[in-house]
Amino acid sequence: MFETAELGRKATKREYKARVPSLRQALLAAQERVRHTDFPVVVLFGGVDGAGKGDVVHALNEWMDPRWMVTRTFERPSQDEAERPAYWRFWQALPPKGQIGLLLSAWYSRPLLRRAYGGPEAEFEEALEEIADFEKQLADDGAVVVKFWLHLGKQGQEKRFKRLAKDPLHAWRVTERDWDHWRKYEDFVGAAERIIGRTSTGDCPWHIVEGVCPRYASLHVGGLLLETIERRLAEHEEAHTSLPAPAHAALAEASLDAELAHGRAPTVLAKLDMTQRLEKNAYRTLLATHQGRLNRLQLQARNQKVSTILVFEGWDAAGKGGAIRRMNAALDSRGVRVVPTAAPSDEESAQHYLWRFWRHLSRAGRVTIFDRSWYGRVLVERVEGFASEKEWRRAYAEINRFEQQVTNHGIVLVKFWMHLTREEQLARFHEREQTPWKRWKLTEEDWRNRERWDDYEVAVHDMVERTSTRRAPWILVEANDKLFARIKVLESVCSAIEARVGPPDEPHAPSKDARKEKKRGAR
Amino acid sequence: MFETAELGRKATKREYKARVPSLRQALLAAQERVRHTDFPVVVLFGGVDGAGKGDVVHALNEWMDPRWMVTRTFERPSQDEAERPAYWRFWQALPPKGQIGLLLSAWYSRPLLRRAYGGPEAEFEEALEEIADFEKQLADDGAVVVKFWLHLGKQGQEKRFKRLAKDPLHAWRVTERDWDHWRKYEDFVGAAERIIGRTSTGDCPWHIVEGVCPRYASLHVGGLLLETIERRLAEHEEAHTSLPAPAHAALAEASLDAELAHGRAPTVLAKLDMTQRLEKNAYRTLLATHQGRLNRLQLQARNQKVSTILVFEGWDAAGKGGAIRRMNAALDSRGVRVVPTAAPSDEESAQHYLWRFWRHLSRAGRVTIFDRSWYGRVLVERVEGFASEKEWRRAYAEINRFEQQVTNHGIVLVKFWMHLTREEQLARFHEREQTPWKRWKLTEEDWRNRERWDDYEVAVHDMVERTSTRRAPWILVEANDKLFARIKVLESVCSAIEARVGPPDEPHAPSKDARKEKKRGAR
Repeated sequence: MFETAELGRKATKREYKARVPSLRQALLAAQERVRHTDFPVVVLFGGVDGAGKGDVVHALNEWMDPRWMVTRTFERPSQDEAERPAYWRFWQALPPKGQIGLLLSAWYSRPLLRRAYGGPEAEFEEALEEIADFEKQLADDGAVVVKFWLHLGKQGQEKRFKRLAKDPLHAWRVTERDWDHWRKYEDFVGAAERIIGRTSTGDCPWHIVEGVCPRYASLHVGGLLLETIERRLAEHEEAHTSLPAPAHAALAEASLDAELAHGRAPTVLAKLDMTQRLEKNAYRTLLATHQGRLNRLQLQARNQKVSTILVFEGWDAAGKGGAIRRMNAALDSRGVRVVPTAAPSDEESAQHYLWRFWRHLSRAGRVTIFDRSWYGRVLVERVEGFASEKEWRRAYAEINRFEQQVTNHGIVLVKFWMHLTREEQLARFHEREQTPWKRWKLTEEDWRNRERWDDYEVAVHDMVERTSTRRAPWILVEANDKLFARIKVLESVCSAIEARVGPPDEPHAPSKDARKEKKRGAR
Repeated sequence: MFETAELGRKATKREYKARVPSLRQALLAAQERVRHTDFPVVVLFGGVDGAGKGDVVHALNEWMDPRWMVTRTFERPSQDEAERPAYWRFWQALPPKGQIGLLLSAWYSRPLLRRAYGGPEAEFEEALEEIADFEKQLADDGAVVVKFWLHLGKQGQEKRFKRLAKDPLHAWRVTERDWDHWRKYEDFVGAAERIIGRTSTGDCPWHIVEGVCPRYASLHVGGLLLETIERRLAEHEEAHTSLPAPAHAALAEASLDAELAHGRAPTVLAKLDMTQRLEKNAYRTLLATHQGRLNRLQLQARNQKVSTILVFEGWDAAGKGGAIRRMNAALDSRGVRVVPTAAPSDEESAQHYLWRFWRHLSRAGRVTIFDRSWYGRVLVERVEGFASEKEWRRAYAEINRFEQQVTNHGIVLVKFWMHLTREEQLARFHEREQTPWKRWKLTEEDWRNRERWDDYEVAVHDMVERTSTRRAPWILVEANDKLFARIKVLESVCSAIEARVGPPDEPHAPSKDARKEKKRGAR
């Protein structure tokens, strides 16, 4: 694979000086145009040590406008980073729309090292899958993703290291670790071949660049980057002048949900027994029991460094807030955070739609409660047409992948759909209108959403069908009776945490009574 | 001080139920009005353990709209937090404008604990100064700052703990640590008295609230909070309908800079020897020497966990970018970050103007380079009138305090003003116009700024006069000759780091030659 990158191509100083001005000008012009688009440019640099990644990045920084370009390198994860899913820090480092990000090694670093040092094949393959999937998400969201592998042959690398080591100004660049890697050159190249083979996709291609001569490498990368950006700009400008592609209509036509969309088939929600209720006295007992249980489980999870993420979605007025408050009352407030999902800020709008949820992932051992969530993409954004059909259809896979990363990291993830009947919602709206301190809760939007009840019901059905997994299940909560709903939520949260950390230590652990078994059946 | 909070005031369930609806409604209405203003509401809760801070916060969360309110508690600092100046995490936790933040203990927690456990008086006083100053900054920026001290007598605390410990649902709330604190009750109350005495200012008052009865405490705090917010809203609405206060004009009149402002007195910039140059050969040697030195110092600082912050300000086209690049070339890119200061994002605009710089403070041992900085407040914002006179005048003290926190944390801080003569700037503008890949660097704004040269010169003079301290000095760089300027910057950075971490270990350390001494004289 790398034979073509060991040809000894060079650029003389004179050639370099002759070519830089026009390249630089073209790159700047392209950069200026990118600024006014809605896509980011993600440029990745990989390659063996000493192959000149730094030189190329340095040149690009010199040629282009640093205000709209960020360079990111990644050290060993800090404690705060290590306590979150591995990709958390990469999400934080992504350039916003209209900007260019130069990322060194990034998500390739660990898989390459692990594999070169004998890590198991299966783990390596899994890591590559994860990378391909992650990059696809970025590309699907419109990002330009382009990757440069800087290559040096084994002898070339040796020569480079020796030359650097002799120069007092550059000796620091060569460490014992570099020589260790050099001795494992064959292993690195083997892993690199596999990496490039697996992750070089149409949308996110690798370019192998000969690294012997930094001038040559910089010019070559600069030229390829320019070409890539210009190609995208042309597409972008074309797309913004032509009509929407007819493909979308066809897609909608072929939709499997056509029948559902016309309200003719029953949804998963239709099967719920909405008459379930709980007496006030029973409620009080169960509330105290499960709050105590939840509190002890929180402590236990904290000690075991197991985090919990709870997602609340549901109809307007279904009692999300009330259920969250009953949980909060039992939790030590230092270890819990409620994240209300409002309209994105401009920093958030300038990123992939999952970015604003990634940023809220907590350190180990905490509870994070999302009051509405990333499911907005396949609910309100789908129904209101804020997301294109292509976007929300893609979102199921993106969400599953995101949640998989979360659960793979050992986090407990439970998702609640708080369900109401139409009649009950109407009654609650009227009640809100009449209660002065609840009036703020009822907006014009709530009434509008209500009109689209059928569309939402289809969206919920699809969502549950496509994103309820064993490790990240949807719990459908029959919420016509608030008391019943709150206990079902509390009990489900407790069970999920308990399944992960074991029953609470203290003597007051409630026995798993018959009531619990009954409710489980009702889910 | 606390006698008035041991009167046993209570609210019965009936009273509570009767009063909550109207209070709740009024709080919601006030909250809704706050949303449309440009100030945040910072609510602090202090007090002994078990005095019911949690109950009150819980009630407020229930009464108000959680979408525009955040509750923050603070655990022991994480590694990432501990590596930054102590207030970094508090800055991150401040509510944006239009929102309400409920902060538990926050910056009071550590001073109170330290003092109660016998920490030295002087340290305690220093901490209180710091708090008063920090809160003043927030208030000056328009924040409503209101603080509630929840109080319980020693017996009341004991009773509360015993009652909680007996209840299986609440036993977790009482820890061994709580009893330790209880045994030191007198020490805590002594420290608390001093805290309240010192930090209860007109703008940021403490209210002492009797904590025996959670219902009473919640109603009382709710009422005081409402009153505070409403008073501010009234002021705010008045201010937005009346003319600007004449006090400003008087302030300008009385300005000490009146003479300077008319360009009649020489500024600190006039004293610089702008003819200083460096030959290309000497430059190359010095560049290599200092780059090597800087690199070794970076490594040494990294090992000693000493961070460095470099600030670059200067005339347009003065060569900030070039100087930064020459430094970057010598630095290991994993340990350095360049932060370009552009227009604030909306998340940044919704905070105190220093917030967006606080967020970029690095972990220990790193180098952070600010390309323009918080000095924008007293430069462009002053000259262009983006900040009011009151705001920019206040900024000197705010900046000094900020930089003091930075240097107290052991961070090396150096600030550069890159100076040009008017003639040289004009020549560079013309050169930029004629060089295709430099043209982007020259904007309409640069020409406009040039027209206000005299105003900027006064602003720079004031800035240097008021913010150049021994531990955070301004270095004025004679930048008519780019080569001379780059070496002066490099050399100054090296000297500053070296003064903190000692000379570099390696054998290649350059001798402190005569040239260096000469340049030092030229500063």
